[in-house]
Formats: sequence, C-alpha cells, structure tokens
Amino acid sequence: MLTDTAARAADRVDTARRLLVSARTPDSAAMPVGQVPSWLAERARAGEFRVTRVPFAQLRGWYFEEGTGDLRHESGRFFAVEGLHVHADALPAGGWRQPIIVQPEVGLLGIVAREIDGVLHFLMQAKMEPGNINTLQLSPTVQATRSNFTGVHKGRPIPHLDLFLRRGRARVLVDVLQSEQADWFLAKRNRNMIIEVDEEIETGPEFRWLTFGQLLRLLHLDNVLNMDTRSILACLPTAGAADGTAADPVLRSFHDPSAASRHTMPEILSWLTGIRALRELVQRRIPLAAVAEDGWRRTGEEIGHDSGRRFRVIGADIRASNREVASWSQPLIQPQVPGLMALVVKRIGGTLHALVQARVDVGHLNVAELAPTVHCRPADHTGPGRQPFPPFLADVLAAPADRVRYDAVQSEEGGRFYHAENRYVIVEAPEGFTEDVPDDYAWLTFAQLTELLAYGNQLNVELRTLVVCAHTLY
Amino acid sequence: MLTDTAARAADRVDTARRLLVSARTPDSAAMPVGQVPSWLAERARAGEFRVTRVPFAQLRGWYFEEGTGDLRHESGRFFAVEGLHVHADALPAGGWRQPIIVQPEVGLLGIVAREIDGVLHFLMQAKMEPGNINTLQLSPTVQATRSNFTGVHKGRPIPHLDLFLRRGRARVLVDVLQSEQADWFLAKRNRNMIIEVDEEIETGPEFRWLTFGQLLRLLHLDNVLNMDTRSILACLPTAGAADGTAADPVLRSFHDPSAASRHTMPEILSWLTGIRALRELVQRRIPLAAVAEDGWRRTGEEIGHDSGRRFRVIGADIRASNREVASWSQPLIQPQVPGLMALVVKRIGGTLHALVQARVDVGHLNVAELAPTVHCRPADHTGPGRQPFPPFLADVLAAPADRVRYDAVQSEEGGRFYHAENRYVIVEAPEGFTEDVPDDYAWLTFAQLTELLAYGNQLNVELRTLVVCAHTLY
Repeated sequence: MLTDTAARAADRVDTARRLLVSARTPDSAAMPVGQVPSWLAERARAGEFRVTRVPFAQLRGWYFEEGTGDLRHESGRFFAVEGLHVHADALPAGGWRQPIIVQPEVGLLGIVAREIDGVLHFLMQAKMEPGNINTLQLSPTVQATRSNFTGVHKGRPIPHLDLFLRRGRARVLVDVLQSEQADWFLAKRNRNMIIEVDEEIETGPEFRWLTFGQLLRLLHLDNVLNMDTRSILACLPTAGAADGTAADPVLRSFHDPSAASRHTMPEILSWLTGIRALRELVQRRIPLAAVAEDGWRRTGEEIGHDSGRRFRVIGADIRASNREVASWSQPLIQPQVPGLMALVVKRIGGTLHALVQARVDVGHLNVAELAPTVHCRPADHTGPGRQPFPPFLADVLAAPADRVRYDAVQSEEGGRFYHAENRYVIVEAPEGFTEDVPDDYAWLTFAQLTELLAYGNQLNVELRTLVVCAHTLY
Repeated sequence: MLTDTAARAADRVDTARRLLVSARTPDSAAMPVGQVPSWLAERARAGEFRVTRVPFAQLRGWYFEEGTGDLRHESGRFFAVEGLHVHADALPAGGWRQPIIVQPEVGLLGIVAREIDGVLHFLMQAKMEPGNINTLQLSPTVQATRSNFTGVHKGRPIPHLDLFLRRGRARVLVDVLQSEQADWFLAKRNRNMIIEVDEEIETGPEFRWLTFGQLLRLLHLDNVLNMDTRSILACLPTAGAADGTAADPVLRSFHDPSAASRHTMPEILSWLTGIRALRELVQRRIPLAAVAEDGWRRTGEEIGHDSGRRFRVIGADIRASNREVASWSQPLIQPQVPGLMALVVKRIGGTLHALVQARVDVGHLNVAELAPTVHCRPADHTGPGRQPFPPFLADVLAAPADRVRYDAVQSEEGGRFYHAENRYVIVEAPEGFTEDVPDDYAWLTFAQLTELLAYGNQLNVELRTLVVCAHTLY
C-alpha cells in the first residue's frame, strides 16, 4: 500500500455529514462571500497577465510534425493535437475524422480542506488561465500536470503540491480519476482530490478559505468557479448525512440512504453495461493532416471546420507575472458556438430524481458516460443544415421561468479551452412529465450519482458540474 | 432505460445468500458431479473437431495487410493482430514493441441460472475450442461475439442467446464488463452476465445444470472449467450472506459485511487511484511489421520472439461438426512458457485477507488492475538472462504443502489462445508473515474484491480465476 499517499481515507458518511453542515453555512468570517469580487479584482490588478492570439508560426516551442502534421511541443511532453477517426452508431457510416487533444498524462486537481470553527472550509485559489473569459476564476488549491511534478516546464514549485504528494497526517476525502471533455480530449483523465488537514497552513494572497455554502452562492454567478473546482466538489460523498425523516425532496435525494429510488444500483450498472456493450465506439488515432478529408482546414492562424459549428484550434502567447512560468505559448481549443447542458429533475416518490443519458462521445475511454439530460450545441439544431432536436431539448427551451431552478453560464478549463462557455440549467419537470424515457436515459437520485462518482469515468465533466449546481436547490 | 435488457436486477444480498446455499450443495440429482467426466467424454465422441496447425498462407480469409503487415480478416471483423508500442515505468526507457490482438467489439459471456429444488443451478455447456488442450471444457451457456449477434460469421443461431438479448421476466444476477489478458489483448473487454429464469428451458445434449458446490469441486481438476466460466462466476456478489457470527475466517472474508478489514474501501480506491495516476502507461498502436525492431520474427509458420519466453502467433485450421460454423481458420496466440498465478492469503483479525498487487500491464484500458500476489512466468526468472524474482515468488515456491490451499492448472480462453496453461495456487501465509507490503500491494478481504467486481476493469482475469478458486476454501 502506498501508505504515504493513500492511507487514512475518511469515512464517507462522516464526510457527507460534515459537508451538509458546510453547505448550510452560507457565510464565514474567514472570507465573507461579499468580498470575493473585490478580492478577485485586487488579485487581477496584482498580477500582469496578457494573452495574445498569435499565428501558429509564432508559437514558441511548438511545431507541426513533418509527415503527420501533428501539432507538438519540442519537449515531447505537455500535449499534442493529433487526428482521430471514430466509428460510432450515431455518426455517418464511414465514421468521421476530427482534431483531438492527446495528453496521456494524468494531472492532479487538488483542494485542501480544513475545519475552521467546526465547519469544513475549502482552500480556493484565484488563478489566471489563458482561455478564461475573465482572466481569474476560483480554482482548486493545486492544478498540476505530471510535467509540473517532474519539472519539465522548469518553473517555480507549485504551492501546496507537497501536501498531496507526501500527505503525512492528512485525511483523504476524495481521490478518483475523472474524465474531461470527450469532444476535444482523447481519454483524458485527471486525479480529483480533496485532502483535509488539521493544522493551519500558510497561504499566499491568492488563496482563501470558503465554506461549501459560500461556494454554492458563488455558483449562481457566471464564470466564477472554474471547471476543475466544480469537478472535484461534485465527487464529495453525500449519502448517509440525513436520516429517513428528511422532508425536503432534494435533501432526501442527496443525503437520505433510505429514500426510495426509481431504480436500484445493480439495475443502473446493468443498464450502463448494456449501453457500453451494445453501442459501437471504435477510435483510431490518425495524423492531424488526415482530418482535412472531413472538412477541417488549416490556415496560418487556425484549424477550423467548414460547418462553422465545431471548434477551432488557435495559438496564444501568454505573459504572466505570477505563474510558475513567466511566459509561454500554447495552442488552445476555441468552441465556435456555446453549448447547453441541462438537467431535468423530477420528484418521484417524494425524492428528487435527475434524468441522465448514457452518452457515447468520440473521446471516451469507456464508450459511454452519464451526461446531462440535454448535452448539445443548440446552434446545431437551428438554422440551415440543422440536425433534429435531441430528446428533451424542446422541453428545456420551453420551460417556464418558475420551473428553472438553476441557470448560469460556466466555462470549461481555461488552460486548454479559449472562452469555452456553456449554459448550465436545471429544470424541474411538472408532475405529469413522463417517467418513460428512451433506452439511453434513466432517472437517478443524487445519492446514486455520488455513489457512481466514487468510481472514475462514470459521469462526464458537464454532468459533474450540474451535480454541484444541484446542491444549490436545498 | 433499456427496460428489456436491464430491468429487474436482483438484490445483491439475496443473490449472495442463495449463492452460499448453492456452494454448500456439493452434488445434485440434476447431474451428479461424478458423471461429468463421462458426459464430457461422450460429448467429445459425439462431435468431430479437428484442429490443424497451418502456415499463415493457408489461413482461409486472413491476410497480412500490405504496408503495415497487420494480420486481418477479409470481412474487417473478428479481430486483428497488430503492433503495440508501450512506454511504462517497468519497461526499458525506449518502451517496447510487441504484437497485440485488437478486437474493439465487446463480446457476451453469459450463464443462465435457475433454482432447482430451491438451489441455484448454472447451465454449463460442454464446448470445444481450437486452443483447448483437452478439446472440451465447461463453458458458459453462451459465448458470443458481436460478429455472432450480427451474423457476420453466417453460422447457425447460438442457443439461448435470445434469453440475454430479450430478457423478458429473467432477473440479472451479474452484468459487468471485465478485461481479458492484458499481455495479449489491447483493452479487450467482455460482458460477463448471469441471468436467472424461473421456468424450465429446453436444452440440448451439450448443456447440464450444476450447483456452485459442484462447480467448486470441478475446479480442483485441471482444465475443466474454462476461463470465461471462471471469470463470470467470480463476479457473483457475496457480501451480506453471513452475519457477524461466522466463525470460519474464509466465510467471514467472503460473506460477513461486519468483518474487520485491513483497509476501508475508500482507502483501497484511493490507493488504486494513486497507482493509476502516478505510474506511466502510454500505448500506441503501430504496424505489426514494426515489432521486428524489438526481436519479433515472422516466418511462414509463426511470429515469435527471439527470447523464446513470450508468445507465438500461429495459424490453425478447424473442422467442427457441432459449432455454428462447420469449418474456419484463425490465428491463435501460443504462450512459450506457462505462467504462475498465486494468491497469498492470511488471517488478519480473524478474517482471511488476500494479498493483491496493482499491476500495470501493456494492454490495460485503465493503467492498472488488481492482480494475483504473484503473476509471472517463472521461466523468466531462472536460467540465463533471467530477471530478478518478483516480490513473493520465493515465498510461494517455498511454501510447505500444508500451506497450499489450492493448486491446479487452468487454461486461458481456447478461442484465442493455444494450450495456454497457467498454474493457479493459493498459499496461506503463517502468522508471522509480514503485513507491511510494497507500495503496489495491499491486503483485501474477498468481500472487498467482489465489491470491486461490480465495477469493470478493477480485477484482472487471472485474479478473477483465483477469487472463484478461493470459494473452495470454506
């Protein structure tokens, strides 16, 4: 056993109880939530951060490989943009080709937690990323690639990384590999961790301790909690915190293990196994140059798709005064249209259930992962050459305002994606809404979703965001 | 929800209880275990089955692709032998190249179960496979590739397959994707299923109903239960069948949820996450022709490695009177030396614990899976050019006879592997045996192992065999 890095995992029920207390603590003297915007503004002024779009030829350290046309870094590390050929049931018979980010390394996304006055607080970092629409977002305590650990980037040491690598007396609350955007990444996973320490730790001015309740309030704002923060927090265990007397259907769904559910866990696992066994997903890495056959064009400035609806690969040059490395260049993925990620929820037997789909996506490691009820780019389904509406999109678009329980714009990781915004929505379906759903869809409680989150690659990153957002409902 | 294929999964504790009853039923009037050998002999006489090794040029329907040298089937289906380039911590710095079977389709391995006189029986099939050392082994009710479902092989329909595809009122006892040999397959998985029916079903002469107790007795014989049977049976749930009063340390380990364990499940998952995040495994498919650079030679008869210790790819021509297809050709993988798969078990706090390793293997989908304490080819560690002994190999080889709790030769799937025999051993360690093990090893109870088996790709196929064999200990 890796005693130094794995021992002393915390009891899940105890963690769930303490999380609920933290969720019910909407503000804290450690950092009043009202001061977060001014603190972020101050952090933005304190550091210089300039992102300039540049042609590929001006990307320092990056080159298009001869023969394949793959976009690679001179060190052979970080990541590469290659081509992917995919066969899947939902795609045209010959499959399709597209650019894809290949990054076989597993990175670390870690949050340090600590009880302050008996309430769990999470150490958040105000961090700049080149793709962020607003430069700074609340990020995990640590975001590190293996290149960071091993010093390939030759930068300054990352604050608090040591707590995750040599944990000593810290307790592990979350530790699981989770997937990232399967549209843009080939089987990319990051290690999502929360460790809890007992003693005070010294933190720089870019760090603040916040309760879960404060973080939930900040989730109502657009683009404040970054994707990695949302992904990690979604993995916190919930079941067992509340007993069978919980009157609130949301609280029952997250926290009451005796709450009735539409399906049992063995049924859910069998359903997901069936989808993974019966749906086809055959992925093959190909030279980036070969994606031209399917309508992808490379200019000196970008690689984009003829349809105008997928994404672009662009180049950026970054100057930063307070990152481990003072200046660097990198490619970024820029979506051409925003997405809509919507979760339909419904009270079934007094417990809130979420309608999720088992979605097959081009970059998945394991064929299918659970995804939001609606996971699409609405522009694909309107205007000329449009595809038919996916299931439940019409329901979400037509939902009256009083059924919309959550609605905000959140963005995807600014370290790889440029201004990648999605609208995240939770809609509560009325009584009469059908419980009979297509084969690829099922109603799960939130406790069931958090149970699945203990194992990796079961919920996609967009659904993980909606699981955290759903905590705002109680 | 795929109601037709996923609904009505059975309760795991109820299944565990009924499995224990079946395990304690060492014989049954449905098919006395003493008659199994003569029945197998009769089945061998009833069907003609001839396997002839042939040069690659005589493989009907198979060809070496121009340019890549990949060995493929004309239909583009079934499987292909390609090359794999792997970087991993344990390999030489430049990684290594080897042939690998690529078969992205998920096959179905299914057993039908039914209560006879109140005891669970499993419908086993006496099935011939070209690679079987003894032609016939006890196989699952159904073994089907997607090519079988879709009729690519143009053969007769597979008996009982329909029960798995359109299950009607059947209950699902097991339904999970599990990995196969990561030495020889690239990320291959099969769907392992057990469904239970209430009504009698008509079966042909190649089928017999056996209790779990009977199957456990047959496990003491060499090469009677085929690999797929062992893999599926290992996935049956156990925890919860016995209460806290179980005096037998083995029964406690499998069946008593209140039994003390060395580590909690969150600790185990965190440990496994750590290994998967920190160890390197970078796989890249390459042309089969490119494996020549690492000592692989192709002749007209075989592809083999210079060391004489890995495996050969050979060709076989098969004539069969009672398979879906009457005659076909195919490549087979033939190991050059047998393996040793040993599980060290030890009583810790009155409960039997198994010492497992988190093993990184070339073909893994998810970096590491749990493997037996010792998973090796002993010949690699003796004689000229030998590698150092892996941990615990010396302990297993030196174990006195009275500590060897299980010892038999079992073979790997005869549909792909030719005479692939491994010795499977369970050794009980004495009191004083160290509980402090290297980073990649941990002590788990069998209930913890069966809990992990509910999710796919956690235990490798060799460890799954040893989990079933461990049922013989109580």
